[in-house]
Amino acid sequence: MTEKLSPATFIGVGGSDIISFGSGQPDLPPPHEVFECIKDYKCFKYGPIPGQQNLREALAAQNPGFSFENFVVTNGASEALDLTLRAIAKPKDKIMLHVPYYYSYKPLVEMNHLEPSFVNTVEGKIDISDFEEKVHSVKAVLINSPSNPTGRVQGVKTLKFIEKMTRDLDITLISDEVYKDLIYERENYALSGPHIVTVNSFSKTFSMCGLRIGYLFSNDLSIVKKAVDIKTHTSMNTSIISQEMALAATRVPHKFVEQQVSVWRERRDTIYRGLLDLGLELWKPEGAFYVLPKIENSEQFVLDMFKKHKVITYPGEWFGAPGRVRFSYALDKEKIEQGLKRLGEYLKL
Amino acid sequence: MTEKLSPATFIGVGGSDIISFGSGQPDLPPPHEVFECIKDYKCFKYGPIPGQQNLREALAAQNPGFSFENFVVTNGASEALDLTLRAIAKPKDKIMLHVPYYYSYKPLVEMNHLEPSFVNTVEGKIDISDFEEKVHSVKAVLINSPSNPTGRVQGVKTLKFIEKMTRDLDITLISDEVYKDLIYERENYALSGPHIVTVNSFSKTFSMCGLRIGYLFSNDLSIVKKAVDIKTHTSMNTSIISQEMALAATRVPHKFVEQQVSVWRERRDTIYRGLLDLGLELWKPEGAFYVLPKIENSEQFVLDMFKKHKVITYPGEWFGAPGRVRFSYALDKEKIEQGLKRLGEYLKL
Repeated sequence: MTEKLSPATFIGVGGSDIISFGSGQPDLPPPHEVFECIKDYKCFKYGPIPGQQNLREALAAQNPGFSFENFVVTNGASEALDLTLRAIAKPKDKIMLHVPYYYSYKPLVEMNHLEPSFVNTVEGKIDISDFEEKVHSVKAVLINSPSNPTGRVQGVKTLKFIEKMTRDLDITLISDEVYKDLIYERENYALSGPHIVTVNSFSKTFSMCGLRIGYLFSNDLSIVKKAVDIKTHTSMNTSIISQEMALAATRVPHKFVEQQVSVWRERRDTIYRGLLDLGLELWKPEGAFYVLPKIENSEQFVLDMFKKHKVITYPGEWFGAPGRVRFSYALDKEKIEQGLKRLGEYLKL
Repeated sequence: MTEKLSPATFIGVGGSDIISFGSGQPDLPPPHEVFECIKDYKCFKYGPIPGQQNLREALAAQNPGFSFENFVVTNGASEALDLTLRAIAKPKDKIMLHVPYYYSYKPLVEMNHLEPSFVNTVEGKIDISDFEEKVHSVKAVLINSPSNPTGRVQGVKTLKFIEKMTRDLDITLISDEVYKDLIYERENYALSGPHIVTVNSFSKTFSMCGLRIGYLFSNDLSIVKKAVDIKTHTSMNTSIISQEMALAATRVPHKFVEQQVSVWRERRDTIYRGLLDLGLELWKPEGAFYVLPKIENSEQFVLDMFKKHKVITYPGEWFGAPGRVRFSYALDKEKIEQGLKRLGEYLKL
């Protein structure tokens, strides 16, 4: 029965009485500018495959040392990751993932006929000795900090070590930074170097998930060109109206993001405290909006909570973390508290 | 020098003095309803991976015998084709393409680690004896009628033969029908059966190329499910605002399409007559908006016409047709005539 559960089971599922700790979908709307810009929108023609130049220029302005030519605008970070893997690797190459990992990573690696190489973490932090042992055999390393599903942020020392070691070994370092604007505990460290491919998106920072605007950028123009060549055939330009909306988001004052972060921090505190109070064991989230407590029989728990208590959660199995369950806290404090209450009722049984 | 030419070279390239017979981008705008529906648009959340249910229901209503569950809405027909190949085949499987083929087919097959199996055509029509000889070894057959780049429509007898033979051999038959609404010579024959995957899009019929809404549908729900599973990780839902615009297009009276077709037919007549008058050898286009005359040294011709005469055309090499050049006539009659004049000047040299 549990085999039937997949992320697609829950995406887009809703209803007034359902509490969803499932999808990483912010409930707060995007900045109003994102909708204002489309009132008189009239474009309909193909755009350049790498993305509208004005959007790429705006992204370059936010990332010192890069020009618009380093960027490819994609159908969300998902396509950016898929294109990157297709661009850099050939069948049977190994891609290193730190466990627990975002649920799409393993399927993305495998559907591209690549092999995952798993590196351990300790309380969500990469185990450097395990990394050192395994890195020599891989084609690329994929880092996700802050992490979905753990909410943990890798230490600056760790990131610098990985950055240098992959560079010395001529290994591509893919940095999935979709949550880099949502860090509560310290500032992020931006990986840099000629071997880095950075993946980001408007989905989480600007609550624009459904509009599907992500991007990748790299100093390695051969990877950028290869990604564009592939995208020419697999999807062509990313939706031009979604790109226009993303452009509007780049012009929003930074205060918007700061306000979002303060809301997220409050929610983080609510759910972290609430789960601790229910006696669950968990790591404190330092960024993103996920928490991954230990829960026995996690797949059965997810099914029961959905069917009997109308609470959506995701089993740790999808993230390489059996015996844990992912809660996204991308919903308002009242609903988080209501969800915690239903969880408390379940745990008491 | 010519190696540097690729479809991405020209996409999005424009300017008042350039005549582009390049991209298959209709110049006529979409129906006004497509833009009206977004004036008060406010959605931003993830949608279901297979697409918005209202859009899939509208598509099902246009295709008797199908329900919304048979459909997946995609980032253009490109993603529909990529997903289909990823869903049905494993490395080294062979995919049959009729030559000349759309320029993305060969790269799509190869980037999925599959092998193209080319079937000959005679004046753009599939050579049935060659088909019969080669079909036994392939995993899938990809039919594109009307064809980009030839504009030719496969005969009903041929289509029925291929439909039956692939069904008997348990071979998937992928029908790329993005030009099915643009047929001048006769009505199209819709392939059907449990082994068919149909690919279509809003791009050509409704001039919505840049908005990137395509779709696939099949009676084989295992293929549909597999495509959704893949899309869950490679791009998630297709842009929800682009889908809203496509939904508006489904509600436009059929007269819109009829008017478009009458414009296309007139342009077809203009360019067909014009190229014949210039002494070129070509097949009469029966659908779509392409024509593929014989032109010697086609890659050099394309470069010269672009650099010296500011006319964009695509070399036959991209379509498996060296010694020919593709002209898209998706532009107004005056520009077609001006382009023909520049071509005449070049040919006289």
